[in-house]
Amino acid sequence: MVIVWSMSGVLENQLRRMDGKIVGEGFHPKAGQPHAEVFALRDAGDLAANATAFVSLEPCNHYGRTPPCTEALIKAKVKKVVVGMVDPNPIVASTGVSRLRDAGIEVITGVEEELCRKLNEAYIHQMLTGKPFVTLRYSLSVDGDLLDQLGAEVMESGGYYSQLLQEYDAVVVSSFSLSTKYFLSSKEPGAKQPLQIVLAKSSGSLQLPTVSNDTSSRTIIFSNKEITLELEASQKGIETIVLDRMNLAAILEHCKHQGLCSVMLDLRGNTADFAEILQEGFEQNLFQKIIVEVLPILGASNKDPLKYMQQNRRLRNLTSRTLGESILLEGYF
Amino acid sequence: MVIVWSMSGVLENQLRRMDGKIVGEGFHPKAGQPHAEVFALRDAGDLAANATAFVSLEPCNHYGRTPPCTEALIKAKVKKVVVGMVDPNPIVASTGVSRLRDAGIEVITGVEEELCRKLNEAYIHQMLTGKPFVTLRYSLSVDGDLLDQLGAEVMESGGYYSQLLQEYDAVVVSSFSLSTKYFLSSKEPGAKQPLQIVLAKSSGSLQLPTVSNDTSSRTIIFSNKEITLELEASQKGIETIVLDRMNLAAILEHCKHQGLCSVMLDLRGNTADFAEILQEGFEQNLFQKIIVEVLPILGASNKDPLKYMQQNRRLRNLTSRTLGESILLEGYF
Repeated sequence: MVIVWSMSGVLENQLRRMDGKIVGEGFHPKAGQPHAEVFALRDAGDLAANATAFVSLEPCNHYGRTPPCTEALIKAKVKKVVVGMVDPNPIVASTGVSRLRDAGIEVITGVEEELCRKLNEAYIHQMLTGKPFVTLRYSLSVDGDLLDQLGAEVMESGGYYSQLLQEYDAVVVSSFSLSTKYFLSSKEPGAKQPLQIVLAKSSGSLQLPTVSNDTSSRTIIFSNKEITLELEASQKGIETIVLDRMNLAAILEHCKHQGLCSVMLDLRGNTADFAEILQEGFEQNLFQKIIVEVLPILGASNKDPLKYMQQNRRLRNLTSRTLGESILLEGYF
Repeated sequence: MVIVWSMSGVLENQLRRMDGKIVGEGFHPKAGQPHAEVFALRDAGDLAANATAFVSLEPCNHYGRTPPCTEALIKAKVKKVVVGMVDPNPIVASTGVSRLRDAGIEVITGVEEELCRKLNEAYIHQMLTGKPFVTLRYSLSVDGDLLDQLGAEVMESGGYYSQLLQEYDAVVVSSFSLSTKYFLSSKEPGAKQPLQIVLAKSSGSLQLPTVSNDTSSRTIIFSNKEITLELEASQKGIETIVLDRMNLAAILEHCKHQGLCSVMLDLRGNTADFAEILQEGFEQNLFQKIIVEVLPILGASNKDPLKYMQQNRRLRNLTSRTLGESILLEGYF
């Protein structure tokens, strides 16, 4: 019998090899809330006894905002724990593994370690630097033009964009993004919705659209002193923060104090809103990751000599493959 | 026992399933020369008797510029022929298959048909339209800027660029491409070198570099009436064609008359050279395929708002995956 907790399918290969049955699953919703182990043990109930636990990250062994997971595992009488990676947090660092072994539980470490590092990349970064993990996301045409759009179905359940919204604690969007067209909401079942951070920079006043019915998503508007926000009655609940000068460091500091570990900058809408914080982010090395969606579209650009590509040509059978450090795209007219 | 002729590994899965041994291989070097079957049978010699022949395209059954391959197969006493795809050429269209069957040879068709269609895409296009198959190739940075460079090792043997040069009958390059830095030569063992077509458009006179020692590659320079070509002694052998007006249709017509079936436009060097023919190509629908190399580089661009990305930042671990009709790129700073 097997218990799993892992937000992704990282340890699925291991599971398959064991021919196991999943009796409980869990993930860590956000800082301050119980860790994945607690949810998975709760889900498994009595079936946790003598089961094998799979964890992408070493179980914690200290009293932080939540009680130690090691004690929960010992109490639940699990027989074996498979650990993807040892915790980079110096307070945890192998003490969780030691505690479990002292209690007579078999512990295997470093299973699918690279994948687990990726799964925990935001946590690792925040632990080692004290700053949120920041990802830039944008869409490009095949000829390299920044596009405002997303591909078909990527916002639907299972789509990469819907999954990203669940994975990131906060998403920074342009003021234009507040139109319902852009309203950010992960469609994954039971998704944890990100905090939506709106940059209100580009106009003297901001007309906000009606807030989504999805009450699990929160919005904060960051503006600078020159902006006058005009909120409608239904939007009075939206938090607004006025900065002397729009800057990413202040936004990230706010996220950190809210216990948010990962932030995605989504370059859509009025991309001029992002100009200052992009400059600052690159100069200060505040960005860790980039995600680019290449749509099968050509010719939105005015670049020389590709400016002659016709507007909005679509390509068929766009495929990609890894090429050393590069990516090769192929598509058909 | 098995004979194979196929330029690529398309039918390798079939071979593996049969647990066969390859006794001969061949490919079709260019129009006017013997087809792949002839080379493969020659390679196999007496071992062709009772063997199975794998062909990506239906063997021809007519006297064109070469004798029919069906007769060669019958004469060599092969037992079975596995055909990837029936020939789109109306003169051949299933008559090759019929002829083989009439001679008592077992014929299986439509094996790995989609892959064979891709392998033969240039031939199919030329057969159905009477025009060469034209591919645009260029390099982009992750933020969508046109780059002059290629990735490391792609020009070496086994690299995609070296392979493309072997696959295409002709490659159209900017005049600037004639510097040795850009000299086009496939590094595949025994490679068929493409005709190198140089667009001499951007300057009043053109200084050509020393021609490569690789005598198997040929160069033609297309210029318009305004250009005065200044060839050095070592370059006197290079053919030059003066057009009233630089145009792609004339270049493709020339390729067609040379029996060239596939042409790649490589957008490097002085890309202004390509402006007119790109416009013409899109307006006249002369392009069939696009190949883009995305290098793990950021910040070559002056585009808003990405212009703030720092010059020549490199990304680590750039990966891609298919996303419906789009491609998703991910990389790390």
